[in-house]
Amino acid sequence: TEEIEQAMDFAEETVMENSNLPYMHDSTMEAKRIFECLIHPVKPDKFFKELWEKKPLLVKRHMKQYNDGWFSTAELDRILREENLQFSVNLDITTYTNGVRETHNPVGRAYAPVVWDMYQSGCSVRLLNPQTYSRNVWKLLSMLQEYFGCCVGANTYLTPPGTQGFAPHFDDIEAFILQLEGKKHWRLYSPRSDAEKLPRFSSGNFTDVDLGEPILEKTLEPGDLLYFPRGTIHQAKTVGDEHSLHITVSCYQKNTWGDLFEKLMPRAVQLAVEEDVEFRKGLPRGYLNFMGVANSDVDNPQRKEFLRKVEQMMMRMISNAPVDAACDQMGKQFIHDSLPPVLSEAEKSCSIHNGGEKWDKQKSQVVGATEIEPDTAIKIVRKGILRLLTEEDEVRIYHTLENARLYHKVDPQYIDVEAEVASAVEFLIHSYPEFVSVENLPLPTLEKKLEIATSLYEKGLLITGEPLTSLDDDSSCDN
Amino acid sequence: TEEIEQAMDFAEETVMENSNLPYMHDSTMEAKRIFECLIHPVKPDKFFKELWEKKPLLVKRHMKQYNDGWFSTAELDRILREENLQFSVNLDITTYTNGVRETHNPVGRAYAPVVWDMYQSGCSVRLLNPQTYSRNVWKLLSMLQEYFGCCVGANTYLTPPGTQGFAPHFDDIEAFILQLEGKKHWRLYSPRSDAEKLPRFSSGNFTDVDLGEPILEKTLEPGDLLYFPRGTIHQAKTVGDEHSLHITVSCYQKNTWGDLFEKLMPRAVQLAVEEDVEFRKGLPRGYLNFMGVANSDVDNPQRKEFLRKVEQMMMRMISNAPVDAACDQMGKQFIHDSLPPVLSEAEKSCSIHNGGEKWDKQKSQVVGATEIEPDTAIKIVRKGILRLLTEEDEVRIYHTLENARLYHKVDPQYIDVEAEVASAVEFLIHSYPEFVSVENLPLPTLEKKLEIATSLYEKGLLITGEPLTSLDDDSSCDN
Amino acid sequence: TEEIEQAMDFAEETVMENSNLPYMHDSTMEAKRIFECLIHPVKPDKFFKELWEKKPLLVKRHMKQYNDGWFSTAELDRILREENLQFSVNLDITTYTNGVRETHNPVGRAYAPVVWDMYQSGCSVRLLNPQTYSRNVWKLLSMLQEYFGCCVGANTYLTPPGTQGFAPHFDDIEAFILQLEGKKHWRLYSPRSDAEKLPRFSSGNFTDVDLGEPILEKTLEPGDLLYFPRGTIHQAKTVGDEHSLHITVSCYQKNTWGDLFEKLMPRAVQLAVEEDVEFRKGLPRGYLNFMGVANSDVDNPQRKEFLRKVEQMMMRMISNAPVDAACDQMGKQFIHDSLPPVLSEAEKSCSIHNGGEKWDKQKSQVVGATEIEPDTAIKIVRKGILRLLTEEDEVRIYHTLENARLYHKVDPQYIDVEAEVASAVEFLIHSYPEFVSVENLPLPTLEKKLEIATSLYEKGLLITGEPLTSLDDDSSCDN
Amino acid sequence: TEEIEQAMDFAEETVMENSNLPYMHDSTMEAKRIFECLIHPVKPDKFFKELWEKKPLLVKRHMKQYNDGWFSTAELDRILREENLQFSVNLDITTYTNGVRETHNPVGRAYAPVVWDMYQSGCSVRLLNPQTYSRNVWKLLSMLQEYFGCCVGANTYLTPPGTQGFAPHFDDIEAFILQLEGKKHWRLYSPRSDAEKLPRFSSGNFTDVDLGEPILEKTLEPGDLLYFPRGTIHQAKTVGDEHSLHITVSCYQKNTWGDLFEKLMPRAVQLAVEEDVEFRKGLPRGYLNFMGVANSDVDNPQRKEFLRKVEQMMMRMISNAPVDAACDQMGKQFIHDSLPPVLSEAEKSCSIHNGGEKWDKQKSQVVGATEIEPDTAIKIVRKGILRLLTEEDEVRIYHTLENARLYHKVDPQYIDVEAEVASAVEFLIHSYPEFVSVENLPLPTLEKKLEIATSLYEKGLLITGEPLTSLDDDSSCDN
Repeated sequence: TEEIEQAMDFAEETVMENSNLPYMHDSTMEAKRIFECLIHPVKPDKFFKELWEKKPLLVKRHMKQYNDGWFSTAELDRILREENLQFSVNLDITTYTNGVRETHNPVGRAYAPVVWDMYQSGCSVRLLNPQTYSRNVWKLLSMLQEYFGCCVGANTYLTPPGTQGFAPHFDDIEAFILQLEGKKHWRLYSPRSDAEKLPRFSSGNFTDVDLGEPILEKTLEPGDLLYFPRGTIHQAKTVGDEHSLHITVSCYQKNTWGDLFEKLMPRAVQLAVEEDVEFRKGLPRGYLNFMGVANSDVDNPQRKEFLRKVEQMMMRMISNAPVDAACDQMGKQFIHDSLPPVLSEAEKSCSIHNGGEKWDKQKSQVVGATEIEPDTAIKIVRKGILRLLTEEDEVRIYHTLENARLYHKVDPQYIDVEAEVASAVEFLIHSYPEFVSVENLPLPTLEKKLEIATSLYEKGLLITGEPLTSLDDDSSCDN
Repeated sequence: TEEIEQAMDFAEETVMENSNLPYMHDSTMEAKRIFECLIHPVKPDKFFKELWEKKPLLVKRHMKQYNDGWFSTAELDRILREENLQFSVNLDITTYTNGVRETHNPVGRAYAPVVWDMYQSGCSVRLLNPQTYSRNVWKLLSMLQEYFGCCVGANTYLTPPGTQGFAPHFDDIEAFILQLEGKKHWRLYSPRSDAEKLPRFSSGNFTDVDLGEPILEKTLEPGDLLYFPRGTIHQAKTVGDEHSLHITVSCYQKNTWGDLFEKLMPRAVQLAVEEDVEFRKGLPRGYLNFMGVANSDVDNPQRKEFLRKVEQMMMRMISNAPVDAACDQMGKQFIHDSLPPVLSEAEKSCSIHNGGEKWDKQKSQVVGATEIEPDTAIKIVRKGILRLLTEEDEVRIYHTLENARLYHKVDPQYIDVEAEVASAVEFLIHSYPEFVSVENLPLPTLEKKLEIATSLYEKGLLITGEPLTSLDDDSSCDN
Repeated sequence: TEEIEQAMDFAEETVMENSNLPYMHDSTMEAKRIFECLIHPVKPDKFFKELWEKKPLLVKRHMKQYNDGWFSTAELDRILREENLQFSVNLDITTYTNGVRETHNPVGRAYAPVVWDMYQSGCSVRLLNPQTYSRNVWKLLSMLQEYFGCCVGANTYLTPPGTQGFAPHFDDIEAFILQLEGKKHWRLYSPRSDAEKLPRFSSGNFTDVDLGEPILEKTLEPGDLLYFPRGTIHQAKTVGDEHSLHITVSCYQKNTWGDLFEKLMPRAVQLAVEEDVEFRKGLPRGYLNFMGVANSDVDNPQRKEFLRKVEQMMMRMISNAPVDAACDQMGKQFIHDSLPPVLSEAEKSCSIHNGGEKWDKQKSQVVGATEIEPDTAIKIVRKGILRLLTEEDEVRIYHTLENARLYHKVDPQYIDVEAEVASAVEFLIHSYPEFVSVENLPLPTLEKKLEIATSLYEKGLLITGEPLTSLDDDSSCDN
Repeated sequence: TEEIEQAMDFAEETVMENSNLPYMHDSTMEAKRIFECLIHPVKPDKFFKELWEKKPLLVKRHMKQYNDGWFSTAELDRILREENLQFSVNLDITTYTNGVRETHNPVGRAYAPVVWDMYQSGCSVRLLNPQTYSRNVWKLLSMLQEYFGCCVGANTYLTPPGTQGFAPHFDDIEAFILQLEGKKHWRLYSPRSDAEKLPRFSSGNFTDVDLGEPILEKTLEPGDLLYFPRGTIHQAKTVGDEHSLHITVSCYQKNTWGDLFEKLMPRAVQLAVEEDVEFRKGLPRGYLNFMGVANSDVDNPQRKEFLRKVEQMMMRMISNAPVDAACDQMGKQFIHDSLPPVLSEAEKSCSIHNGGEKWDKQKSQVVGATEIEPDTAIKIVRKGILRLLTEEDEVRIYHTLENARLYHKVDPQYIDVEAEVASAVEFLIHSYPEFVSVENLPLPTLEKKLEIATSLYEKGLLITGEPLTSLDDDSSCDN
C-alpha cells in the first residue's frame, strides 16, 4: 500500500461544491463524473484494474472541504428533531471498550437530547440509511447506483473523542469511506483465508488475537477517502480530543457471478426440460445403487457412463442457457433495490411531476391542460430508471419512479404493456441521453406512438424537451 | 327538521381563524371549544340531548369563510405534487351516472395532471385520510378525538360541476360535513328498518327505488355544516356550473355498548372460572339430551332447572364483571387508533422534542445539557395522550406519541413501568391541566420521583413549565 | 373415606364377562349398565350425590377377575408387534427415582423387544389411547361416553416390580382406575388450595414437601376400582416383586359451566347487538376519563351511572341469552370428540355397513339390491350418535359415524339437510330406542319420508328392524 | 406395433401363484423375477432397449389366470366393508358419456352398498392406492419399487358392462396395465407433438377431434398386459355384457434427468461460490446495459466477452458439480416415497419385529432377552431399504421401515449416526445379499461394532441369520 498512499498525497485546486451539482442532463455522464470526483485523483481505469476487489486505497487530500456538503453532525441533529427515528431500526448506539462490543439502544423513538446524552457519555451513533432523510446523500447514492449498476447504500458514523464504537470485523460490501469531520485512526487487515476473500456474508466481531499485522494504518482527516474491498478486516478509533464523523458508501452486495448463476442455472434446467426431450427421459434403472457419496470411490463402468452422460447433458444445457433472461432478473431486482431519481425543478416542470393540469385557486377550476404531440421531444428521465422484461407472458416495464427512499419499503412497481410497443421502449432506452420525437418511435401508427408516449409520460418515466404548452386559451394568456 | 334549519339560519360576527388556533394550553378546554365552533350556534348540551344518534342537523351560516382554513382544492393540488399518493390506497376517482356507480382508479401513483385530467372529464376525487398530509386537518381531528374520546377520521370530496360521485348509501360512522368550496345539494333518508338503525356496517349502494321520501333536502354552501347519524341514507350532487369541496369528519365507529360488551363478557367468564369454583364444576350428566335448539319446545323439569341454574350463574358472573378492565381495553385501542398530538413550537421547546442537548456546529460539540430537577414543573402533554393499564402482570403506559398520522401504521407503543410508580402517573393524569412539581409526586423517595419524571420526559410524554435551563457554564453565557 | 372403603369390601357372585357384552339394543340402557358395573356395588345415585367431584372412592372387590377382559399386558405385547406405535406419540417410557421424574423415549417406532428391554431395566410403560388398538377398550369408552355425554379417554400403565413411574401430581379429569394385574399402592392428597379445586389444567410434578398427609392410602388389587376427582394429588408404586397394570378411564375434561359460558357469552353479545338497538348506541362521551382501573377508586356520579347502565344492559342481554345454541355448540364438539360406535355383526347387517348390494364373485355382478320401503322399521344406531343444529343458515346433522378411534384424526363430519326434514330427525332422536316406520315420519309426503330415511341410512346413521330384503329375484333364491 | 402383438400371442405352461411368492431372500433377485414375470415372455433387455419410453407393448397371454391374485372385485367389496374409504380421497365414481366426463363422488365415507348402487347405474369405480388395503398389491409394488429404484404406484379400475369411465387423455407415468377380470377394448394414440413426448404433467381431457388414428387398438382379456409410455393418449371401454377390472401400475413419475438436474444445478452453484473465489467476484460494472433480452440482438464486444466468460465459468462449475450429492437427494426422496417392506414371518422372527423379549402371560414377566453377539450374522432387510447421506454436518441413515402404506403419510425417517460408522453401513449395503458377522464390520473396536449393529437392529433395519437365542436360563428350557 506504500505506493497508493504516496500517489494520493496531494492537494486539489478546485473543489466541486457537492451540494450544488448540476442536476441532471445525462445521468450516465453525471454518474461517471461523481465517481471520478469520489476517488480523485485516482483514475477509474486504474482503480478498477489495480485496486477494485483487490486492495485498499487511501487518498489523503489535505483539503478539509473536499467532502463537505454530503452530511454533517448538524444535519444529524436536524434529522433527530424533525423525523421519527427509532432506535435499533434507524439508529444504533454502540460502544467498544476493553475488547467488548455493546449496543445500548433504548426502545422507541430516538429524541435528540437522549441521543446526545448518550453521545456525551462516550457512545458512538450509527445512522442507518441517511439517504432517507438527507437529500444530498440521496443524490450521491442515486448517482452512484447509476454508475455501478447495483444497489448502493450508506451509513454515517459519529464517534466521540477518544473512543472506538465497533469491534474489528469485515463486511460483505465494497466500502468507500468519506471523512467528513474530525480525525479517525484506521487499521486494516487482510482476509484470514481464501474462503474469506470477497465473502458473501459479513463476519462477527473479532478480537485482537484473531488478527495479524495491519496492512494499512493511517489517520483519516476531513476530505480524505478510504476504500477497501469486502472481506477486509477493519477497525478505527478517534484520536485526541476530536470527534469524528464519516459516511460509508457501500455497494456490490450480492452482485457477483455466483448471484447471476443462482438465477441462471434453475432457469437453464427448466428450459432444457421444456425444449429438449432428452431431459425428460428417465434416469437409468438402478443408478441409485452405484451413484451417491457412498459410492464415490467405486470404480464401475456404469458409474463412469452415468457421469459422462451427466457432463454431456450439462454441456447441452449450457449451450442454451438463458443468460439474458437471468441478467434481466438481476436487473429487475436492481430496479427494486434502487433509490428513486432526484429530480431538479427544471426536470419536474418537463414531466408529469409538475407539468400539465393545475388547480387555479382564483378561477376555482383546472387550467393548463397539455397533451403529448407528435413532435414532442421525449427521453427517459434517467438511463437506469426502468427495465423491460417478459414475465408470465406479459411485457413489463419495471421502474424506480415510485420507490421510496427507504430500501424495499415499496413493492416492485411495473406496468404491463402490449408486446408490440416493446421496440419503442427499447428505442427510447438506446437513444438516451438524446431526445427523440414521438413521431419517430418505431411503431406502425401515430396513434400507437402517442399512446405509449402518453402512457410512459403519465407514469413519470419521460421528460419532454421543454415544458408542454397548455391547450387552454385562457392559460396561454393569463398564466 | 324544520326547526333545526330555522335555528341555524344566522350570521356570525366573529370568525375564528381556523388555521391559527391558540395551541395548546388545556387540551380538554381547547377540544371543547373546537367542537362548539364546529356546531355553532347549536349548543353541545342540546346537540347531544336532541340530535346525536337521533336526527340530522343542518346549519346554514351565510358566512362563506366560516370553515376556511381546514382544507382547500389548492391544498389538494399541492399534496398531489409533493406526496407520493397512490390510487386506491390514498385516493379514489369515482362517478355515479345514470344510477351506475363506477371507480376509475388507475394503478400506482396519482400524479396531479392525471388526477386533474380525470376531474375535468367529470370524475369525483375522494382523498382518504387528509390528516396524513394536511397539518390543519391533523390539528382538527386530533382535537376532536380528545373531545369525543374515540377515533376521529376524515375524507375530502371534490366534485366537478353538474355531477354526483357516489350512489345513495349509509355509513357506520357519525358524519360531520363541512362545506368548504362551491355548493352541493344533499338528500337524506331515514333508515329503512330498525335493524339498520345505528348500524355496525356501512351499506352497499342503493338505487332510487330502495329509498322513500327524503327527510331533508337542502343545498350546502361554504361555511355550512351538515351532521347526520350513522345509518342515515344520503346522496349529494353539485348544482349549476360550480364545483364542490367538503370534508367529512367521522367518529364513533365501533364505539358502542356492544363493543364494550364484546371485550367485557369473555373477561367476565374467565374471571368467574378462575375465582369461583362453581364455574369449574361439571355440567349435569345428560344435559345434551334435553338442551339444544331441537329441545327448545320440550317442557321438562330438568330443562327448567338447567335454565334456572344458567341464569343464577350469570347473575353471579355479572356482579363481578371486570368493567374497568374492559374499559381499559377500549382505551388501549383508542390510544392505538389516535393521531399523535400536534405540538406548538413553545410546547416543543418545553419537551424532549426540542429541549435539552443540541449539537453546536461551531464548537463541534454537544451543548445545552439539562436535567429534570426536584422543583421542575411538569404536566402531561395532552389529557388523552396516554393510558395506564395492567397487562401480563406488567404496568404499562400506552401512549400516542409515536403514532403516525397514517392510521395504524405504527404498532401499539407502550412503556413498562414499575408497579409502584403507577400512582405517580395517575396523579399526573388527574392533575391535568395543572402543572405539578416533581417533588410533589406521590412516591416515597426523591430518587424515584426524578426517575419516573425523567423517564416520561424522555419519551416525550411531559412538558415542563418553562424550557429547562442548561447545566453548561458555557452554554449559559454563549447560547 | 373410612365408610367408603368399608362399603366396598365385598365379594360378588356373578361376574359379567366384559369382553362379551350383549351389544347393543338400547345404548342408553347399556351405557347405564356398564357404568353401574364399573362402580358396583356403589349405586350411581349415591355416587353422583356424595362422591362425584367431591371425594375419592375405593372399591376393594376381592374378586380378581372382576375387571378382566378390558386389557392385559399380553394385549400390549400383541399391539406392539402388530401396530406401528411411536415413542412419545403413542407410548411413554418413564421413571421416578429418588424424587426425579424422567422420560426415556427413544425416537421413532416402539418395537416390542426395545420396550421390554426398558421395562426390564425398571421403566414404566404408559400406553396412550389404548382404544385405538384394543376393541374392548373402544367398547368400554364408547359406552361410557354415551353415559356421561362427554369425551371419555384412557391410558394404561404398566409398572415393573418395586418401582414408581410418575411423580405426585394432579390431573384435569375425573379418573376411574381399574386394577387389571398385580398390586399397586396408592396415596391420595387433597387439593392444596381452593384455586386448585376442580382445576382446568393438570399440575406439574410435585415433590414430597409440597404434600400434606394422604387422605387415602391403600393397595389396589386386580378387580378393584379407585375413583378420584380432578385436582386430587396422587402417586402410586408397585409393591413386592409383582408388576402392576391398570387402566385409567378419564372424563369431564373441559366440560364445566365455565366452558358452556365461554361459548354462550360471546353469542349473547352478538345477538344483543343484532337485535337490540340499545347495544348499538354509542358509549357516553368521555367515559374513558372516569372508567378504567386507574379510576376504580374514584367516587363519581358519572361512574356510578355508567356502572348502573352496564348492569342493566347485562340483565337485558342475559334474559335473551341463546342458551340452547351454546349447548348445541358443546354438543357439536362432543360429537367431534367422540369415538365412533362399535357395531355388532347383527347391527351391521341391518345397516349400510353390511346390508344391501354386494359383489357376487361367482356371477361377477352386483346382487342384493335393497331399498328403504314405507313400512321399513328404522331407528338411529345409538342415542348419542348425532346432533342436529343450525349453522350458517344450514340445518346440519353432525355425527360420529366416520370419526376414527384416534382422537380428532378426522375433521367434524356433517350432512346438510333441508330445514323441513329437521322435524323428522328430531322425531327419530326422541323415539329412540323404539323403531318407527318410515311412513310415520312427520313429513308431508311419502317421497320426502323415503328420501330422508334413505339419506340417513346411506350415511350409516340408521339401523333397520331387520336386514333389508333384496329386490333381486335371483338373490332371493340363491343367496 | 405389429411385431409386438405377434410376439406376445402365446400361452404359458406354468403360472406363478402371485399371492404365494417366496418372500424374500435376495430382494434384488426377487424384484428382477417379479418384473420378468410381469412382462413375460418379453425379456427385460429387449423391453428396455426397444420399448421403454418409446412405444406400447401388448401381451396377449391367453391364460386367464396369469394375473390372478393381485386384486379382484371381491377384494374391493371386502375393502369397502372393512375400511373407512372416503369418496374423492380414496375412491372416485366417474362416467364418460357422449363425450362428457363427469365425477359423481358423494361426500364422506364410501359404504359398499352406495358404491355398488352407483356401479349398477353405469358408473366406473376407481380405487386409489390399493396397496394401502391389499397386501398383495403392497407386495407387488414394494418389489417393483426395488426393481425400478423409484416410486411405484397403482390404481384399480372397475368398469360396468358397456361403458367407458374416462375421457381420452395422457398421463405423466409409465403405465403397466394388468387385466384382472372381464374384457376391455383399448385405443392408444401417439403424442400430438414433440413437446408432449414423455411429458412432465398429465393432460386434461381430450375430445375425439383432438386425436388422430389409433396406433394400437385391441381388447385386453384376463391375464393380458398392456404397457405404454407417459404421453401416450389412451381410452378404453368395456364390450358386450361383461364388466372389466384392471390394475394400472405406474412408475417413473418425476424420475428424469431433468429432475436430477433440478437438484444438481443449485448445489453446483452453491459449491462453486463457496470454493472458488472467481464466483464471488463482482459482475462487470454496467453489464445490465448490454445484457438482457432487450439487448439480445446487439452486436457488442462487451456482450461477447460477457457471454464467453459465462460459458467459461459454467465449464468450471460443471467440472466440480456434486453429482453424487444430487443423486443422494434423489435417493433420499425415493426413500420417503417408498412403501415399507413386506416381511415374511421368518424374517420377522429374525428381526426386531418379532425377535427378542416377549411378555410371558403365564409367568407375568418378560422372557426371551437376546443380544447381538460378535458372531451374529446380519444383513440389511432389503437392498433398497436405506440410504446413507451427509446432511447439515450429520451422517444420516434415511430408511423406509416406518413409512406407511399411504404415500407420504409419515415424514422422512432417519437416524443420525457418528461419522465413523458410515463405513460399516456402506459395508452392509455392499455385502447385500450376503450375511456378515458383526465382528467383521470395518470398525476399530468390537464395542463399536456391537453398538452400531444393535442400533440398526433395534430400528428394524437388520435381519439376523437365524433368530437370536435367548439369554434367559428359563426361556431356554421352557419356551
